[in-house]
Amino acid sequence: FSTAIKKSLRIGLIPGDGIGREVLPAAQDAILAVGSSIPKTEFISLDAGFECFTKHGEALPQETVQALKNECDGALFGAVSSPTRKVTGYSSPIVALRKQLDLYANIRPVVAIASPGERGSKVDLIVVRENTECLYVKQEQLITTSEGVKATATRVITKEASRRIGKMAFELALGRPRKHLTIIHKSNVLSVTDGLFRETIRGIPLSDKQYTEVTVAEQIVDSAVYRLFREPEIYDVLVAPNLYGDILSDAAAALVGSLGIVPSVNAGDKFVMGEPVHGSAPDIAGQKKANPLAAIRSAALMLRYMGYPDGADRIDNAVNEVLRRGEILTPDLGGTSTTEEVTNEVVKRI
Amino acid sequence: FSTAIKKSLRIGLIPGDGIGREVLPAAQDAILAVGSSIPKTEFISLDAGFECFTKHGEALPQETVQALKNECDGALFGAVSSPTRKVTGYSSPIVALRKQLDLYANIRPVVAIASPGERGSKVDLIVVRENTECLYVKQEQLITTSEGVKATATRVITKEASRRIGKMAFELALGRPRKHLTIIHKSNVLSVTDGLFRETIRGIPLSDKQYTEVTVAEQIVDSAVYRLFREPEIYDVLVAPNLYGDILSDAAAALVGSLGIVPSVNAGDKFVMGEPVHGSAPDIAGQKKANPLAAIRSAALMLRYMGYPDGADRIDNAVNEVLRRGEILTPDLGGTSTTEEVTNEVVKRI
Ligand SMILES: CC(C)[C@H](C(=O)O)[C@@H](O)C(=O)O
Ligand SMILES: CC(C)[C@H](C(=O)O)[C@@H](O)C(=O)O
Repeated sequence: FSTAIKKSLRIGLIPGDGIGREVLPAAQDAILAVGSSIPKTEFISLDAGFECFTKHGEALPQETVQALKNECDGALFGAVSSPTRKVTGYSSPIVALRKQLDLYANIRPVVAIASPGERGSKVDLIVVRENTECLYVKQEQLITTSEGVKATATRVITKEASRRIGKMAFELALGRPRKHLTIIHKSNVLSVTDGLFRETIRGIPLSDKQYTEVTVAEQIVDSAVYRLFREPEIYDVLVAPNLYGDILSDAAAALVGSLGIVPSVNAGDKFVMGEPVHGSAPDIAGQKKANPLAAIRSAALMLRYMGYPDGADRIDNAVNEVLRRGEILTPDLGGTSTTEEVTNEVVKRI
Repeated sequence: FSTAIKKSLRIGLIPGDGIGREVLPAAQDAILAVGSSIPKTEFISLDAGFECFTKHGEALPQETVQALKNECDGALFGAVSSPTRKVTGYSSPIVALRKQLDLYANIRPVVAIASPGERGSKVDLIVVRENTECLYVKQEQLITTSEGVKATATRVITKEASRRIGKMAFELALGRPRKHLTIIHKSNVLSVTDGLFRETIRGIPLSDKQYTEVTVAEQIVDSAVYRLFREPEIYDVLVAPNLYGDILSDAAAALVGSLGIVPSVNAGDKFVMGEPVHGSAPDIAGQKKANPLAAIRSAALMLRYMGYPDGADRIDNAVNEVLRRGEILTPDLGGTSTTEEVTNEVVKRI
């Protein structure tokens, strides 16, 4: 899914809310520091999020979607706040963006670098999360009958989406030393939907022979979380329907020390959007405490999937160096440095 | 939900598959050892599970359900195996039992007793899991159209079920020193279904004034799992829709060292069924390695909710003593003892 090499790049920046606005400038600095490893880069600021909704009445303006589609070669998304009470008309812009740009894979590598404790040190995995369906199709209804109030949501799993996310996962597994894939499901309860997910992915190596090298295991989601915590070393690449992938990637992030270092990309066949796995963290917003590393790593991951591995490596190596030294870190990692100090430390080493 | 004190008790035993058959006899021994703290007790063996399905064509015979309804004062369930491939006509008997007996609450206390590591030692919580709806209603469809194969599942959340599980959770919180309740949901995506769950539970103290003493917090499920790993001490009682509760209780079990020590009860207004949180563990079945403590504790929990706290305390104290000593333990806890040796050690101390 890497795009053709270009003369110049335009990257859309959607900071969103809260610390999203504090960490995207850090990611931008990191990209600018890469210099000649990537084409000349321009940034386009785009609006979305809860504040955007309260100001303009829409959480995801169509101009943002159009700009991403027509003018950008890649994008970075910060984070958005969720209202703490039901707000009529508001709907998460990140979920909508993933769907509207058909970014069907959410790729979340979780790797221990510095010493994050006994178990965390064994974590080296990638969560490959299906990004467009499952309960995220948002088909919900509220029905009031004489028997009471009942709400329903539809969970959708298609063979097509399971197959393309499965192929993406096999592809990633093939590129790693262990070449191991674990399919996450709950087909002991959801035999039809998760049954389809599981069987479709199991079936991929039958037609795509290059994947027969990959060993395939499977786990039921509750037990997968249990084992992730107890024996993280059993995992290499995990492929999961949308909601399980959401939960599993947060669980894996907890093991390596902080959500503040875990990057992701939302990837389609033609476009990638980097996104730190953390949220908008209203509790620490505005305090210069936000860890910029997840956003910076998301920028590297974006560049990697855009076809610029050298630029990506330069950023990743700098981040790893900063983590290994462990001197300049934000409070979530036990340090006392600010977002800007950590960013400068990374930029210096790129 | 405690039933009236009886002259004699009849407890249904549904061992199920795998280690379910090895741990239920241990629970039975523990109950028998309690002696005069509970009425004279008789056990009724009942069939269910995957082996039952392969032998008799049904995973949950109606005789089992009828015996539980008409002849038993309480019950203990072992574990059932899930087929590793789709088996037509098979459907999990535990899910069906919960529904047919209207055991609407799955109560899972997770407490660190022995020293299970730095973070685990701070765990003292109860997961109160809604047990009858959510994706467990099993309304699934497979649709083949010209566009491909699509599977759907319906997730159901009713106000009524949210209210009763919420009241159960408030009730439990009220009986604990911290009196703190965390509502788990994903209403940033599922605003209608999880919105209903959240708002209904938030509303309970407005009409049931005795609950205003309980402090209420809420967390989105992915971040709840993250924080459970990072700061388990923030939790006291958690209330969750069915699937999130399933995942969260496994995650909490990982923190305290082993699923092999975590008990639960499936509770309705008139009936309780104890059930260890672990599964049938086909990998260790028949090897005398299964940890009987989760089943023994489930027996204690069952007695407690049946109205026999003294009997329950005697069992719990014996289990805690064995865990504290740490000499006679099964391999999952780092020991070398057998199921029977651990059971005898507990029985000796009851
Ligand atoms: C903010 C929320 C809608 C989102 C999700 O559930 O996908 C977030 O948790 C994530 O993981 O990116
Ligand atoms: C066996 C399975 C259907 C069950 C569930 O999902 O409820 C189990 O995981 C549990 O937690 O009791």
